[in-house]
Amino acid sequence: MSRHYIGIDLGGTNIKSGVVDDEANVISKISIPTEGQKGRPKVLENICTSAELAVRESGISLDEIHAIGIGSPGVQDWEAGVLVYAPNLPDWTDVPLVKMLEERFDKPAALDNDANAAAWGEFWAGAGRGVNTMVMLTLGTGVGGGIILDGKLWHGHKTAAAELGHISIDYKGRKCACGNIGCIEAYASANSLVRRFVEAVRAGRQTSLAEAAVGDETLTSKMIYEAAVAGDEFSRKMMTETGEFLGVAIVSIIHTLNPELVVLSGGMINAGEMIMKPLKRVVWERSFKRALEGFDITFATLGEDAGFIGVAGCALSRFETSA
Amino acid sequence: MSRHYIGIDLGGTNIKSGVVDDEANVISKISIPTEGQKGRPKVLENICTSAELAVRESGISLDEIHAIGIGSPGVQDWEAGVLVYAPNLPDWTDVPLVKMLEERFDKPAALDNDANAAAWGEFWAGAGRGVNTMVMLTLGTGVGGGIILDGKLWHGHKTAAAELGHISIDYKGRKCACGNIGCIEAYASANSLVRRFVEAVRAGRQTSLAEAAVGDETLTSKMIYEAAVAGDEFSRKMMTETGEFLGVAIVSIIHTLNPELVVLSGGMINAGEMIMKPLKRVVWERSFKRALEGFDITFATLGEDAGFIGVAGCALSRFETSA
Repeated sequence: MSRHYIGIDLGGTNIKSGVVDDEANVISKISIPTEGQKGRPKVLENICTSAELAVRESGISLDEIHAIGIGSPGVQDWEAGVLVYAPNLPDWTDVPLVKMLEERFDKPAALDNDANAAAWGEFWAGAGRGVNTMVMLTLGTGVGGGIILDGKLWHGHKTAAAELGHISIDYKGRKCACGNIGCIEAYASANSLVRRFVEAVRAGRQTSLAEAAVGDETLTSKMIYEAAVAGDEFSRKMMTETGEFLGVAIVSIIHTLNPELVVLSGGMINAGEMIMKPLKRVVWERSFKRALEGFDITFATLGEDAGFIGVAGCALSRFETSA
Repeated sequence: MSRHYIGIDLGGTNIKSGVVDDEANVISKISIPTEGQKGRPKVLENICTSAELAVRESGISLDEIHAIGIGSPGVQDWEAGVLVYAPNLPDWTDVPLVKMLEERFDKPAALDNDANAAAWGEFWAGAGRGVNTMVMLTLGTGVGGGIILDGKLWHGHKTAAAELGHISIDYKGRKCACGNIGCIEAYASANSLVRRFVEAVRAGRQTSLAEAAVGDETLTSKMIYEAAVAGDEFSRKMMTETGEFLGVAIVSIIHTLNPELVVLSGGMINAGEMIMKPLKRVVWERSFKRALEGFDITFATLGEDAGFIGVAGCALSRFETSA
């Protein structure tokens, strides 16, 4: 008989939850607003509500739920089950999320980082199925990461591993909000792409998006991609460069870990081959031949469901041997 | 009763071997020339001779040796026990080193990369004793690396992991012999330090070493270090920069793996604090606070013995459960 798990993906805007079985089939999924501005007690209540709604929607009784997984932004002490801090949820320090869920639902619960959870989702049920060692880069408003080594999530000594957005590609390059210099996040996140674009337009570059870039209209990475598709040369150049920058960071990851697969996820992957092609060119030009044997780079397949599916999978891994 | 292991460190110039017990005590150590120029059969013979000499020197009979470990430069298929290729030993491709040793000595044998072996040596018996997750950077004529995660050497999908000398710190920076751009090896190896120095002198920089840098005398990294100690300002600046460059690469390693300890080894560490101080400054300025909790960077303690001690330890790990 299959076992069922609740996965909760706590985001800055929405909480996505679902019931997932032990073969990664999604039985239900729901999404409700996080309501972070209403304060911590309200968000904690919403977390529980989202789990209850996911169970109701699944048609499976709570008794049949084996364990609960929750993924959150920020830094977690995953072994203690404590959210140490979350930049997008102000005043959230040392929140015992696991204890709260275990008391409320009387089920074992597991906590992990949202990027780790999404990487585990792709590894378990998406683009990474069948591989053993995989690195995921999530290209959204920021750049996140997750590392799976020999079938296990790598958390590091203080659960601060896989901060792949902060690998530097230029020691004297762009400043990152984190304090480091040349972080790939400062080049290849959606926000950074827009920032680089606006800077270039202000410096006089010609583009069909010139007005949007310096005017009132808010420029988005999607607009840059669409302009590139429509033939705007500078937009195309910026997309190519973004892929190349990512390639440089991935080469450093390959030299460090020699993974079997790198998976790209997040909003930026909508640009498809326009990013992937230059990225792969750089990786294949600059990596050791040996490391490229049996190696590939591919796009994630689970979209925004990766988080709750993945963290349900984390709960499964953590509690599969328990009664 | 303690068990004994032979460790063989195959280098381009010398073969260092020794007998090591299961508590990492060195019972004997010897060194003989590799004689690479005399061809592969001669080197293979020298490998066996060095192992025999180490056993004789130890006063322990071959019967009491439990297993043999051999570390070599280049790329290994460590599971198959095959040296895939070695850049410093021409025409060495697909050499079944493990099979050869097992047949010759009738003992189980294990092969690993020399940099991995040295890292394992420091982890088992040197600077890394007591930690769980450690990264070693070897700063010699090149820059090598070894990664120990949760008490195990990390080899990667095709045993091409831990090539930490080829992490890029500048996507448009110095070209590396490997084909990549901005590799830390192209900045911080002993050879690269000399090369950067000579370039700067040719470009007009003032230094007490100016004549050595452009003249017939062969400039060495040691001379630069000594000039720095003697008060040469430009030499001091070059040493500081070398530490800073290493710091940038280590920050990327920390963001990826969040290790407990980074160990620096190799000839360049003779420069001591002159490299360590700027290196640590960069790491502490640019890393996440969380990753710096309980983290340190230190120098290796085993010197050139790390290789044979480490690979004896690899043999121990591999065969400790066998009869």
